[in-house]
Amino acid sequence: MRLRNKPWAAPLIDAHPEYLSVRPEGMPGKWQARFEKPQPLFLEVGSGKGQFITEMAKLHPDRNFIALEIQEVAIAYILRKQVALKLPNLQLILGDGADLTTYFEPGEITGLYLNFSDPWPKSRHEKRRLTYKTFLAQYQAILPAGGQLQFKTDNQGFFEYSLVSMNNFGMTFELVALDLHHDGRVQDNVETEYEHKFASRGGRIYELLARFPEGKEKPSR
Amino acid sequence: MRLRNKPWAAPLIDAHPEYLSVRPEGMPGKWQARFEKPQPLFLEVGSGKGQFITEMAKLHPDRNFIALEIQEVAIAYILRKQVALKLPNLQLILGDGADLTTYFEPGEITGLYLNFSDPWPKSRHEKRRLTYKTFLAQYQAILPAGGQLQFKTDNQGFFEYSLVSMNNFGMTFELVALDLHHDGRVQDNVETEYEHKFASRGGRIYELLARFPEGKEKPSR
Ligand SMILES: C[S@@+](CC[C@H](N)C(=O)[O-])C[C@H]1O[C@@H](n2cnc3c(N)ncnc32)[C@H](O)[C@@H]1O
Ligand SMILES: C[S@@+](CC[C@H](N)C(=O)[O-])C[C@H]1O[C@@H](n2cnc3c(N)ncnc32)[C@H](O)[C@@H]1O
Repeated sequence: MRLRNKPWAAPLIDAHPEYLSVRPEGMPGKWQARFEKPQPLFLEVGSGKGQFITEMAKLHPDRNFIALEIQEVAIAYILRKQVALKLPNLQLILGDGADLTTYFEPGEITGLYLNFSDPWPKSRHEKRRLTYKTFLAQYQAILPAGGQLQFKTDNQGFFEYSLVSMNNFGMTFELVALDLHHDGRVQDNVETEYEHKFASRGGRIYELLARFPEGKEKPSR
Repeated sequence: MRLRNKPWAAPLIDAHPEYLSVRPEGMPGKWQARFEKPQPLFLEVGSGKGQFITEMAKLHPDRNFIALEIQEVAIAYILRKQVALKLPNLQLILGDGADLTTYFEPGEITGLYLNFSDPWPKSRHEKRRLTYKTFLAQYQAILPAGGQLQFKTDNQGFFEYSLVSMNNFGMTFELVALDLHHDGRVQDNVETEYEHKFASRGGRIYELLARFPEGKEKPSR
């Protein structure tokens, strides 16, 4: 999803280095120092305008959160929210989910969220999907052994693909929800912008909770 | 699904030992001798009235098939079909999917089908679901390493459960279809009675193709 450019975005980004880091390659191992206090650290890759991550940061003051976006305008929307909210447990990164190992140290992230990532439906674009194995390897590298990933999408084909991809990577499934908004097991769902729009038109939301394998042996599949 | 008893069922079963074996505990390793010729052998557990397995046997003369049912009336319906069809590549078993290792030798079955198995939605009945780990262990024991299982259901909760259960067992997913009857990837679907009834009312059909782990190491999860 490409957002229209905004003239206020670049100046806002320049004005708030206390909240936002741009392609922060010197930071591995040092993230906790950017928060009010050190706490388990959760990362969302592809945060859009940030409804999910700001809500999560409000609901869970005992955790730290990072919103990562590749689009300058998107991260600027989140920054605008954060300048108003001043959440002590939220930091922002303008960067690429393909470069996570240059931003974070192994095990620095406790849990990871993928929400309504671009589905890239054509098979020749498989490598761009955020659940393709090279991305999974990035996530695994910055999570502890057994680290958790939460993935939500409205896109049936992308969900089918991601179930196979994460299974083939050796990940252990904890929960599959094929209709999240009508699932008695899930009480604490926090909606994203995309999710809200899609679900209010009656669409199904899919969710997968899965853990990376314990130990760093290469997945055999 | 319990079928109503039929007075013709028991006599028909007694009259056709050439097609039907009752709890055949002396048979491991000897199944190929009951077919016209030895060919890869496919087993369906819980065949109902047999629409799927008879159709598969007609479509694939180069494979042998076994229909397994726990209900006498159900297997009698299949037998009635087979007495008319005389398919040389179809055999029937009245028996229990929990006892597969007493009927078959390791590796004797090439592939296994589960179609619209009873979902047992209450969690206290989890152990009765045909995708519970004790059943998966039975299937694994009679399939070769890497043997394939094809699972179809209309029941969302049962499919969610089975994805997690088969993943946790260490199985490798090959295909997940969340709406089988509108899936461009699947061309050769053969319907069961249940599937036909449900899909004609507009319901979604789910399918999972998965392989058991190579090698016989115990799954770690
Ligand atoms: C469809 S939007 C969903 C936004 C938000 N998560 C939601 O649910 O409303 C996908 C977002 O992922 C971002 N994105 C795509 N590829 C990315 C990458 N490699 N690294 C970081 N963000 C990415 C896009 O810029 C876009 O904002
Ligand atoms: C809901 S019906 C589906 C029948 C058929 N596969 C179809 O799709 O139309 C489930 C069938 O599984 C059989 N079944 C249940 N548990 C079984 C077991 N442990 N071993 C063999 N068959 C079983 C039942 O008797 C019933 O006929």
